[in-house]
Amino acid sequence: MAVQKPSIPKGTRDFGQKEMAERNYIFDTIKSVFRTYGYSQIETPAQENLSTLLGKYGDEGDKLLFRILNSGDAFSGIDYESFRNEDGSYNSKALSLKTCEKGLRYDLTVPFARYVVQHQNELSFPFRRFQIQPVWRADRPQKGRYREFYQCDADVIGSKSQINELELVQIVDRVFTLFGINVLIKINNRKLLTGFAEIAGFPDKVVDITVAIDKLDKIGLDAVKEEMKERGLTDEAIAVIEPILGLSGTTAEKIATMRSMMNGQSASGLVSEAGLKGCDELEELFGFIEAAGVKQAVEIDLSLARGLNYYTGAIFEVKALDFPIGSICGGGRYDNLTGIFGLPDMSGVGISFGADRIYDVLKGLEKFPAGLTTSTTLLFANMDRAAVAYVIPVARALREKGISCEIYPDSTKLKKQFDYADRKAIPFLSIVGGDEIAAGVVNVKNLSSGEQKQFAKDDIEGIVAFLR
Amino acid sequence: MAVQKPSIPKGTRDFGQKEMAERNYIFDTIKSVFRTYGYSQIETPAQENLSTLLGKYGDEGDKLLFRILNSGDAFSGIDYESFRNEDGSYNSKALSLKTCEKGLRYDLTVPFARYVVQHQNELSFPFRRFQIQPVWRADRPQKGRYREFYQCDADVIGSKSQINELELVQIVDRVFTLFGINVLIKINNRKLLTGFAEIAGFPDKVVDITVAIDKLDKIGLDAVKEEMKERGLTDEAIAVIEPILGLSGTTAEKIATMRSMMNGQSASGLVSEAGLKGCDELEELFGFIEAAGVKQAVEIDLSLARGLNYYTGAIFEVKALDFPIGSICGGGRYDNLTGIFGLPDMSGVGISFGADRIYDVLKGLEKFPAGLTTSTTLLFANMDRAAVAYVIPVARALREKGISCEIYPDSTKLKKQFDYADRKAIPFLSIVGGDEIAAGVVNVKNLSSGEQKQFAKDDIEGIVAFLR
Repeated sequence: MAVQKPSIPKGTRDFGQKEMAERNYIFDTIKSVFRTYGYSQIETPAQENLSTLLGKYGDEGDKLLFRILNSGDAFSGIDYESFRNEDGSYNSKALSLKTCEKGLRYDLTVPFARYVVQHQNELSFPFRRFQIQPVWRADRPQKGRYREFYQCDADVIGSKSQINELELVQIVDRVFTLFGINVLIKINNRKLLTGFAEIAGFPDKVVDITVAIDKLDKIGLDAVKEEMKERGLTDEAIAVIEPILGLSGTTAEKIATMRSMMNGQSASGLVSEAGLKGCDELEELFGFIEAAGVKQAVEIDLSLARGLNYYTGAIFEVKALDFPIGSICGGGRYDNLTGIFGLPDMSGVGISFGADRIYDVLKGLEKFPAGLTTSTTLLFANMDRAAVAYVIPVARALREKGISCEIYPDSTKLKKQFDYADRKAIPFLSIVGGDEIAAGVVNVKNLSSGEQKQFAKDDIEGIVAFLR
Repeated sequence: MAVQKPSIPKGTRDFGQKEMAERNYIFDTIKSVFRTYGYSQIETPAQENLSTLLGKYGDEGDKLLFRILNSGDAFSGIDYESFRNEDGSYNSKALSLKTCEKGLRYDLTVPFARYVVQHQNELSFPFRRFQIQPVWRADRPQKGRYREFYQCDADVIGSKSQINELELVQIVDRVFTLFGINVLIKINNRKLLTGFAEIAGFPDKVVDITVAIDKLDKIGLDAVKEEMKERGLTDEAIAVIEPILGLSGTTAEKIATMRSMMNGQSASGLVSEAGLKGCDELEELFGFIEAAGVKQAVEIDLSLARGLNYYTGAIFEVKALDFPIGSICGGGRYDNLTGIFGLPDMSGVGISFGADRIYDVLKGLEKFPAGLTTSTTLLFANMDRAAVAYVIPVARALREKGISCEIYPDSTKLKKQFDYADRKAIPFLSIVGGDEIAAGVVNVKNLSSGEQKQFAKDDIEGIVAFLR
């Protein structure tokens, strides 16, 4: 066979020892916090039936699904001519449905909904689960955007209580505090966005209004107003919404102002029941947040709208305060996620940590703990076969105490063995030769301090103490 | 959208909380042992270029690869008529190559070889890595055979020393000792199989001889001899091999007998250099194994031949002694794994743990440790909003001490909340109402012993001690 120059598909990555240690630190920290909040881990298969995935992420999402060719004779029995478009090309979308029944997981939320419905009789509700697995999207790769990346989600389903929202905020608070990253947790409520549209007199323009005000930070107030106008809002409607965009004061003051507006005190005089409900929910949530003593900054952001398609209550977004990067965590409440799979009226709320961006922040701020990546503590140099046979039981006893050690497998030049220890940053070295064997001892040297100690061959506790 | 009855592709599985806890126990145990032997974790992408995968697993393996449809317009620009077979059907193999450039990882060995070649300048050799990731095979699903399953591999590459073989044996020994599973570790050497063919005078019939003697356990000596004859061996050649098949005695005696046979003392009088080298390697390895004090049973099995296609030295296979299931771990040495990717002369040796079968053995022998799956330690019942606000800081402080707790999110009937604790087997319950709030205390009840204790609200250490 011809020699191939090896490569991996674009948008995918190999993770070496160092990155794995750093990524495991991220996942382990998040997992440990999820667990203290009673969330337990599940895993779902990488492949889902396309019928489970299609139509859940919009037309754009459908295009980004990786489809798996049916095994066996996928291409026979198809009348290709009947799949011609008018311009003579083939209808790839229709042909992909003929040849592919499965696709790769696009996120963890839809598989979670599918899981809950499929296993509903085995689960105790409210059901809390976390899931940390890769997802795949056939997106155009670019800096920070990959075709395979891990998601790290916690969701609870089967409870409408704001306690769930609180606990997700607490999880975010705790995780980033453990990471040593200062964040701002922004919170909104989809019912308020509905309320804006209702008191503006355009209840069917929630999406238009939201898309426009979502850009406030980037394009400024005048441009937002212009966009709302282009999207069909009247000057009167915009005049109702404008005061909301400039809302200042404490959280309590903001909620009080919104409540009075939703209650008929805006320029339109219209009342929004949804908006009032949104105020109730936010008020309750912020009351809980105060009782909990959340350490990180939390604020209401009325322009926050992520994932408008399915959020129905709280909306969360987390940004790092000291590092310029997009959202590093987000989520919200969805009232009917499992409806599409036949289980209606299940309200859920969840968050998703963006592992790749958190990695970049920890790297950028140099917040990874020291010593994460040292895999081997002690290297036994290889002098000859007799010396190796002598140290094998010592190495074994140390390993059973949890010490990571290596015996250099080949009896090559010591220089080469030292270089190996050096390149792998192994902190301790043991060189045992005929003299040590005769004396029944083992030498261990701390390569950074230069300190060297001699131990009886069976003084495993002594060696362990020196290595720690 | 119409309601769908949810399902997952055949041969794939969901893992719920309990199975995840049990599977994590398996993986964590294996990982901890890998680490003490200086193996460090890497991960490679689920998708590899088909050019990396094709031709590495034989024709049968190529058919079992899951192929990923190219994104975008995968079906245009193809002249389907030119892909017709003579019988009018389409050539699916050729069409799949036109429409699919990527496939799902089929094992961890080929991605490892690709990784080593691609990253050779960043690695320190001998390079030890472990990798625990799912692989996918479009095999016909049946009991115990899945289309998605985890492999759990450790390999070292860049050293020919038998120390590496020893350490893999020690890893196997330690892992199954930690699991409490008694195993038999069977060892052979491919060079001996070559030697059998050479001293029998049929050096080109290694595969035929091996395939036949591999069946010794199942079909018995006479049938094996018959099969060798059918495969073209003469009676004289079979007479050379027959004594090997009945070899008994200690390991040292077996090696001594084989050495003399390979050295011209068989009926043919032929000498096999490969066979002698195989004897040297086995002798050295068993010498190391004796020095190391391996606890589990280890024996030479001259009929062992797994993965004959690429093993060139040691061959390992591990069977559970007290549970009837196939091999639960296996591996061997391969001298030219990275050659196909342009890096010749790199010898490596590795093992792979079969997580699904180990799961079945642990389950069947009831060896999973107790208490693996309790995710939540303490449930705070939800009496009302005031009581919840009162326990929120208590729950938070306990969580920061690593205690997993839940506040029941809805203030429903206590019966329902108790049932929830019962179904989730949560061992401790706290019910806080107006009296406790007035007294500044928290009650905690051990649900199995019935013992109940009252703590000052801020006596977190006291509560933690009661929970442990």
